[in-house]
Amino acid sequence: MDVGFLGLGHMGKPIATHVLRAGHRLTVWNRSAAPCEELGHLGATVAVDPAAAARGEALMIMLADDDACRAVLIGGRVLESAAPGIVLINLSTVSVELTRELAARAQQHDIPYVAAPVFGRPEVAQRGQLNVVAGGAHAAIARIESLLGSIGQRTWRVGDTPEAASIVKLAGNFMIASAIETMAEAAALAQAYGVPRAQFLEVLTSTLFASPAYQIYGRMLAEQRYEPAGFKLRLGLKDVRLALQAGERAHVPLPFASVLRDHFLESIAQGAGDQDWSALGRAAARRAGLPDKPA
Amino acid sequence: MDVGFLGLGHMGKPIATHVLRAGHRLTVWNRSAAPCEELGHLGATVAVDPAAAARGEALMIMLADDDACRAVLIGGRVLESAAPGIVLINLSTVSVELTRELAARAQQHDIPYVAAPVFGRPEVAQRGQLNVVAGGAHAAIARIESLLGSIGQRTWRVGDTPEAASIVKLAGNFMIASAIETMAEAAALAQAYGVPRAQFLEVLTSTLFASPAYQIYGRMLAEQRYEPAGFKLRLGLKDVRLALQAGERAHVPLPFASVLRDHFLESIAQGAGDQDWSALGRAAARRAGLPDKPA
Amino acid sequence: MDVGFLGLGHMGKPIATHVLRAGHRLTVWNRSAAPCEELGHLGATVAVDPAAAARGEALMIMLADDDACRAVLIGGRVLESAAPGIVLINLSTVSVELTRELAARAQQHDIPYVAAPVFGRPEVAQRGQLNVVAGGAHAAIARIESLLGSIGQRTWRVGDTPEAASIVKLAGNFMIASAIETMAEAAALAQAYGVPRAQFLEVLTSTLFASPAYQIYGRMLAEQRYEPAGFKLRLGLKDVRLALQAGERAHVPLPFASVLRDHFLESIAQGAGDQDWSALGRAAARRAGLPDKPA
Amino acid sequence: MDVGFLGLGHMGKPIATHVLRAGHRLTVWNRSAAPCEELGHLGATVAVDPAAAARGEALMIMLADDDACRAVLIGGRVLESAAPGIVLINLSTVSVELTRELAARAQQHDIPYVAAPVFGRPEVAQRGQLNVVAGGAHAAIARIESLLGSIGQRTWRVGDTPEAASIVKLAGNFMIASAIETMAEAAALAQAYGVPRAQFLEVLTSTLFASPAYQIYGRMLAEQRYEPAGFKLRLGLKDVRLALQAGERAHVPLPFASVLRDHFLESIAQGAGDQDWSALGRAAARRAGLPDKPA
Repeated sequence: MDVGFLGLGHMGKPIATHVLRAGHRLTVWNRSAAPCEELGHLGATVAVDPAAAARGEALMIMLADDDACRAVLIGGRVLESAAPGIVLINLSTVSVELTRELAARAQQHDIPYVAAPVFGRPEVAQRGQLNVVAGGAHAAIARIESLLGSIGQRTWRVGDTPEAASIVKLAGNFMIASAIETMAEAAALAQAYGVPRAQFLEVLTSTLFASPAYQIYGRMLAEQRYEPAGFKLRLGLKDVRLALQAGERAHVPLPFASVLRDHFLESIAQGAGDQDWSALGRAAARRAGLPDKPA
Repeated sequence: MDVGFLGLGHMGKPIATHVLRAGHRLTVWNRSAAPCEELGHLGATVAVDPAAAARGEALMIMLADDDACRAVLIGGRVLESAAPGIVLINLSTVSVELTRELAARAQQHDIPYVAAPVFGRPEVAQRGQLNVVAGGAHAAIARIESLLGSIGQRTWRVGDTPEAASIVKLAGNFMIASAIETMAEAAALAQAYGVPRAQFLEVLTSTLFASPAYQIYGRMLAEQRYEPAGFKLRLGLKDVRLALQAGERAHVPLPFASVLRDHFLESIAQGAGDQDWSALGRAAARRAGLPDKPA
Repeated sequence: MDVGFLGLGHMGKPIATHVLRAGHRLTVWNRSAAPCEELGHLGATVAVDPAAAARGEALMIMLADDDACRAVLIGGRVLESAAPGIVLINLSTVSVELTRELAARAQQHDIPYVAAPVFGRPEVAQRGQLNVVAGGAHAAIARIESLLGSIGQRTWRVGDTPEAASIVKLAGNFMIASAIETMAEAAALAQAYGVPRAQFLEVLTSTLFASPAYQIYGRMLAEQRYEPAGFKLRLGLKDVRLALQAGERAHVPLPFASVLRDHFLESIAQGAGDQDWSALGRAAARRAGLPDKPA
Repeated sequence: MDVGFLGLGHMGKPIATHVLRAGHRLTVWNRSAAPCEELGHLGATVAVDPAAAARGEALMIMLADDDACRAVLIGGRVLESAAPGIVLINLSTVSVELTRELAARAQQHDIPYVAAPVFGRPEVAQRGQLNVVAGGAHAAIARIESLLGSIGQRTWRVGDTPEAASIVKLAGNFMIASAIETMAEAAALAQAYGVPRAQFLEVLTSTLFASPAYQIYGRMLAEQRYEPAGFKLRLGLKDVRLALQAGERAHVPLPFASVLRDHFLESIAQGAGDQDWSALGRAAARRAGLPDKPA
């Protein structure tokens, strides 16, 4: 397929690389030039602006947040100049509201819009092992199924509207944050009774909680090592806020998410905004008067 | 070994059966007679009272809670009449305080005390697949290592004091309750946006959260089927309360556990005390005004 | 003074009436005509549009929320056509962000902007007993001091920026919501132990908590009568959300406000969005399985 | 009347003094001798042990907590040796459970038991301005009405069972803690936006919240001066815990109390256990990264 790709950050670059390797013709655009050059060396065409990347059969978008999506897609008048028959595939984690707005705008231009956010950190993207959550019209998803197949280990179709995929992604990220907080509190309790955090977390994450989310963050909490950040705490706050906003719109109270929001804020106030979001563990330890680092 | 066993309930009976099958000589006692007879048919000796079961090399205890342990062990004057050289192995989920008290009393009688609470529901106990968490003096645990090996898939040694095992068990149960609440909230959010609970939970529990705790309770939350109870909600409240009490003693705030406690109370007030503790999902749905059951 | 007034709702109408009675010349505008006519009969001039009311020495604004302020002030191009030398006085409860934006826009037109939100329900406004919280440049406030004096019992100057007044109002409304929730929980506890809510609340609101906020809402909670609404629950949610947003911007966790937000959402999901915000008491009673109404 | 009095601490001493001044014959006992001597100089008889103070028509008790009441009343075999016809008046703040137990024990000895906890700090007790909350049989309260009248400004009869008074006291103390936390959070928010805490709190506690509880603690929070303690933070935790336990027993969730409990623990972990319970304000400021003290 002829595929455009907007956004070559930590996640976008490895994903775009997989698209290329799968044999698609790729046209890329990124705010800064360096990653475009890298993809260029691998065979991609570099577009002069976002609209120029929207000339093929599909346009994939992996941008940081609502603002970036607005700036690039609406500000860059991508829809207005997109090729007829193109499918828009937004891989970014954005609000339900933006998903609705972009889908509505796309529809005005007769462009099918698929929300396809992904679960997985950059190293998972590099291995092509992402889980892709797709929401949108059946026919549209059918046309890009193999394309999504090229970037992840599995595509989960969760409904025939883009917002279905959006909410699954936001709810899923809330679940990860919740798992981190749970381990942070439980590990503080164990530590206060003389059981080393690492030992405690090994027992639980090898048994009842033997799953990727618990094992990845369990390790960071065990070592109390929150840098470098795989996913920055302030982005964690953003995603939990988006889940809370979605909940508010539909009158769904999310008490755990509310606690998380407060703990993210506390962490940022203490200077941990650019640490990994597992730094919730620092806040939990500090609240209990426990040392921040193992001796 | 010559092994005594007190408490043949949902958990105790299958565990005792494994002890017997592993070739140990077993003397059992239970408050009601029926399960003793069952074990008797399998070759166990039936003791007339708790003290009579404490004549061998080890005494295993699997009772419901602090009160039952107090009544049987202290009320039954088990320590006073125990055989010299016996090792006490308490498999029950009890408070840190009771663990300390029983360990201290045992020490006065020169009896080594091992806390060895287990992770796993009755069907896991039947398959001999429990995870056993052992805390106590090294020498004592060494003497009963093969005995513990006969009842579970693995023994995790978490410290040289019984209370270390106690706290790991309580913190672990808090983590399960927390996982249930997290899924309950997230599933309500997904459902409010038109994504069926079952579909949402399948995505998450097959990927980031592909672990026993999430899969077992995820299924119940997906089907909104909270009966029959594998573990009653009012016992869930008890265990979270024990974690909170342990936290209070050591000045460890547990904000998620506090939310859980309130939600358990709300559930009990609404009549769900004898349902499975995954009925936290009912309360989350009701708070959001969502139907309790799929159409 | 020559005074314009935008917004003659439950609060605006009695306030404008006091301005008129104090001897000022008043020009009013409102989205719907009826209240303009009423004020017209009392001697006010009716403006054809918002901009037409901005011809005097001061323009008072009392609109429902951020959206209404944006629509009327920005959409209505009020600043562009305002008389030179006019002072803008925004009495509305709006976000800190909007306050900043409006103040900045006013400054571009050399118009002094004073935020002057008020504490008090409509009946308090009618009696001229509001408490006015004023923030803005000293010189500007000095020019309108007597005007503010005409609508309330006292003007509290809280800083030389408009946002200072905004934050005091939002924090104050959060405190009221918090008082309601506190009484709701405490009354449920008393009731569960056989102490009638009314009796319990009388003791506390006559002694330690003998203040307007507690007495007004204590009465509604005692009678469990949440209609008609003095202040609608969904507006309570809006104000608590504005406080939370302000907190988020400055990294100030507000755990009580987070709980309130969830309880407001739960109440709205149960159909209480248009009841008085003291209907938090219904949610607290329901969570405890207590009857919603006295027998 | 012939009145005995057990417990001459910060609260007991001024209360006993008022009893004496009202013209009653007083026999006092206290764990340490010094305050007995003081009362002796004022005309009281000093009893050799608690039982010896129980010889008159009424016995007033003002002890620190459940444990002290148990030790003195049960351990001291006071009921067994009390004069026939005596009325027991327990002014202490204790658990609902202890109230039930003591009332039941008293009944076995045909001794009427009145729970009469008080609202007010030591300086209020000195001025004789306490609010007394009385629960117990009508006839019993009638007999001691003037006695209660001598120690407070008003006696509030809240039910014909002692536990009614207990729950009112516990719910009331929860309300005070809640008011402190509310002010702590709101003041942090105001401060983060440049409004001095003192100024913010003055506005609110002079208007909507012009009541003793808000004014007393508002002043401490404004000055961020939490020592010397009028009421120690660790006692605040105790009382909130008693409210939570009473809630748990009756299935009444108390989400605000749960948050308070966590914040008390956090405060104790940070070394504030012996400061005034308004030191909740320190924790709120710290969570927001705000300075602990004004510059």
